[in-house]
Amino acid sequence: MRGAILHAPRDIRVEQREDPKIEQPTDAVIRLAATCVCGSDLWSYRGIEPVSGPAPMGHEYAGIVEEIGPDVRNVKPGQFVIGSFFASDNTCEICQAGYQTSCIHREPIGAIGTQAERARIPLADGTLVATPGVPSDDLVPSLLAASDVLGTGWFGAVAADVQPGKTVAVVGDGAVGLLAVLAANQLGAGRIIAMSRHESRQKLALEFGATDIVTERGDDGVTAVKDLTGGLGAHSVIEAVGTQESMMQAIRSARPGGHVGYVGVAHDVELPGQELFFSHVHLHGGPAPVRRFLPELIELICDRAIDPGRVFDLTLPLDQAAEGYRAMDERRAIKTLLRP
Amino acid sequence: MRGAILHAPRDIRVEQREDPKIEQPTDAVIRLAATCVCGSDLWSYRGIEPVSGPAPMGHEYAGIVEEIGPDVRNVKPGQFVIGSFFASDNTCEICQAGYQTSCIHREPIGAIGTQAERARIPLADGTLVATPGVPSDDLVPSLLAASDVLGTGWFGAVAADVQPGKTVAVVGDGAVGLLAVLAANQLGAGRIIAMSRHESRQKLALEFGATDIVTERGDDGVTAVKDLTGGLGAHSVIEAVGTQESMMQAIRSARPGGHVGYVGVAHDVELPGQELFFSHVHLHGGPAPVRRFLPELIELICDRAIDPGRVFDLTLPLDQAAEGYRAMDERRAIKTLLRP
Repeated sequence: MRGAILHAPRDIRVEQREDPKIEQPTDAVIRLAATCVCGSDLWSYRGIEPVSGPAPMGHEYAGIVEEIGPDVRNVKPGQFVIGSFFASDNTCEICQAGYQTSCIHREPIGAIGTQAERARIPLADGTLVATPGVPSDDLVPSLLAASDVLGTGWFGAVAADVQPGKTVAVVGDGAVGLLAVLAANQLGAGRIIAMSRHESRQKLALEFGATDIVTERGDDGVTAVKDLTGGLGAHSVIEAVGTQESMMQAIRSARPGGHVGYVGVAHDVELPGQELFFSHVHLHGGPAPVRRFLPELIELICDRAIDPGRVFDLTLPLDQAAEGYRAMDERRAIKTLLRP
Repeated sequence: MRGAILHAPRDIRVEQREDPKIEQPTDAVIRLAATCVCGSDLWSYRGIEPVSGPAPMGHEYAGIVEEIGPDVRNVKPGQFVIGSFFASDNTCEICQAGYQTSCIHREPIGAIGTQAERARIPLADGTLVATPGVPSDDLVPSLLAASDVLGTGWFGAVAADVQPGKTVAVVGDGAVGLLAVLAANQLGAGRIIAMSRHESRQKLALEFGATDIVTERGDDGVTAVKDLTGGLGAHSVIEAVGTQESMMQAIRSARPGGHVGYVGVAHDVELPGQELFFSHVHLHGGPAPVRRFLPELIELICDRAIDPGRVFDLTLPLDQAAEGYRAMDERRAIKTLLRP
């Protein structure tokens, strides 16, 4: 089959890969209806995370089950399924508490690489959620978004304790930040402040439910949020970038007793203990346990109550993955969908 | 009146201070029934926090109202009252959300100094809570404990989301750590792991409800907690020290999805963002909003349901404050009560 391989920073090629097959009795093999490039793929693409030899890429996936191992009970060949970027058993104590991305048996899908025609999914029973029937093709982008960016933005909003009528600020205008706006809106936020300086992203944020746009960053961004909230700060702040500046902006934008949900993968971030202590914020985040939210998100998408697939503003055939990465790297695209 | 003044590191003297008086119409003046030395007083006593000139000391207090300003409505002369280490209006949006130590009008009582015969308490209506009648003298230590260490340990337990039947670990065996054990027990924890290597403190921890004692510290302490919790870590961890080692020990002792409540005043602490991200813990803490809990704590004490005053293992006349500090500095005493 064809699949994307990162050979070195900015050197991504779609080439022949070995066909996936059932390796464990709990595996499934799926044929990808669609896959995509993640903001977090750019960390290794840009060489910020080291690249040690050719690496298959991609951890977002939606498609049709082709084959299952003998122990798989919950999904069947022919079903359309979505899973998250960590395979999880969904039965251990950590999974049952809703933290499937910390499952005691978790396996990273990124190591498998779903920017490909087909993929082996471990722990299929715990990992995959089937849609009710095979969805129409126009729903595929939204269902694919549920695999990571929607689930991650949703977890950011839940981790930030978004409550009906309350004020939410979102730091980051990538796909996750934009879908955190959508999530906050679904969760009933009264006011949603999107922090963005890019016109096309501001527009999408407003369509997803943002009520205010703040273009300033860093401490100026904090001041702008304070000005909009009677000097107190937002009740909930969602951080969807992962840098020192964005984390501090998020923490400083929350009011005492407020909640910061952070889902940007932290890189070179050091949080000053004393400032955090006196900030009085709640801090929660990490790799989003997307599996927790998948049934609810799939239902919202299939009911056409939400349309998260709109974050894909570039669709390319899988063979043009390199252009898909470039467009995101240069911020010409919010998110690239790849059709195998 | 007489009061304790810190002149330089380890140079504390009880000397004549100006009598407090009503300065604002919202003030009250109280006569201290008892006051005490706080673990956080030791930061400046030891010179870790800079001492710039003679400073009145003490921020814990319980006593009789002597005089009130013309705008005070909720407390009256003759009442026995307790307040927290920050005065707060208890009416602003932050107070109403339960974060009185971040009140928009807050004033630090530490700047006033309650290791003295009398003290002016600002924002008396919002700050002070009266006991039902004047309590018998044997209740005074416990009521004084509610002013800070009990309220702080309690907040640690609430911030760590202690739930009935769940496993709690407590890092720190000072008065706050020990009272966090008591709080966790009151909140219904099923198992309480106290981390202490001091026999007298272990004993008190067990009497307050600890079910397990771990003597190891740092990563060995983490391993011990993991061993006691099926390899997963505790559901809730209360951090009551404030150092880099204790914070990391707390974070690493919590399971994914677990909660860390931190109430040790953070000094030179830097939290590594990436480790925190992948730890999946909830982190919340800061200066305990003791005022939130005072009515409930006073009731428990007056009903003799809890006896937090047992953390005072040294009682001295105010004039011997210097010895009280020394005993705590040398860890000969858990906590020193001073009788003016």
